[in-house]
Amino acid sequence: MAGCEAKERKILVAVDEGEESMYALSWCLNNIVVSQNSKDTLILIYAKPTPSIYTAVDGTGYLFSPDTMSSMERYSNEVAECVMEKAKRLCKEDHNLDVKVETRVESGDPRDVICQAVEKFGVDLAVLGSHGYGLIKRTFLGSVSNHCAQTAKCPVLIVKRPKSDGPSK
Amino acid sequence: MAGCEAKERKILVAVDEGEESMYALSWCLNNIVVSQNSKDTLILIYAKPTPSIYTAVDGTGYLFSPDTMSSMERYSNEVAECVMEKAKRLCKEDHNLDVKVETRVESGDPRDVICQAVEKFGVDLAVLGSHGYGLIKRTFLGSVSNHCAQTAKCPVLIVKRPKSDGPSK
Repeated sequence: MAGCEAKERKILVAVDEGEESMYALSWCLNNIVVSQNSKDTLILIYAKPTPSIYTAVDGTGYLFSPDTMSSMERYSNEVAECVMEKAKRLCKEDHNLDVKVETRVESGDPRDVICQAVEKFGVDLAVLGSHGYGLIKRTFLGSVSNHCAQTAKCPVLIVKRPKSDGPSK
Repeated sequence: MAGCEAKERKILVAVDEGEESMYALSWCLNNIVVSQNSKDTLILIYAKPTPSIYTAVDGTGYLFSPDTMSSMERYSNEVAECVMEKAKRLCKEDHNLDVKVETRVESGDPRDVICQAVEKFGVDLAVLGSHGYGLIKRTFLGSVSNHCAQTAKCPVLIVKRPKSDGPSK
């Protein structure tokens, strides 16, 4: 296994709108996907809230109007697109890696979205920030990273952003 | 960061007498420390129970005799030595990596031992199996990997051994 032979691995990175997930992606690129000749495939996954989650957030017992739901859905799609663009830019420009990048936007609780994607795509390693993963964070009880570390059927790398806010290494 | 330039990283791997931690070490060697010219330093750490833990295990309210304590201590040292030998063999022979390996045996709760070592040695990545880390496992309440993922001041990789018991990749 020695040397720089390329191995075909599927590495899932869960991204969201927070800086921590971008730091986790950057750390992964620097420390796991280091070779320009890498045959790794990066699967960037973003979990967007389902309509039922918006309803839970309201908390008044009333449903949002169809108009409100529709604009929330539109906003959520725009956020997903923006996050994916930022993540892809990080891979291609900032790290100058010609790695294969796939993006997936799925609706649901990020814990389920991540664990299901691991099985669906036969992922070899899942990379997560230690916080975040929710447009509306308080709707997700419990820690996404803890849950995935125990449940996902592959090794899980949990990357914390240093408190100093220094550059990634 | 592209290419195979060697980076000087300190990678801590927590080992114990269980197969899961050896699988985690093997996965780390195959997927993180892949280069023969690596400048990585592997720090293999083993947490052995403290005398107070033996006492708690007795559970009768009586202390063990000094003779019993002494033979438990001796046994624990032998286990530590055996685990370290096995781990070093895995690095050098099975993976043919000329990586620098340091070994540390510390007394205490593995959660504290691991998190303290991360700070003490300026570790860049901590690698853990998702279970284990205790000669006498039931004395350690809560999950070592969960605790370290939240507390350790570096990224934490949690490696589960596949249920199929297949070879590591």
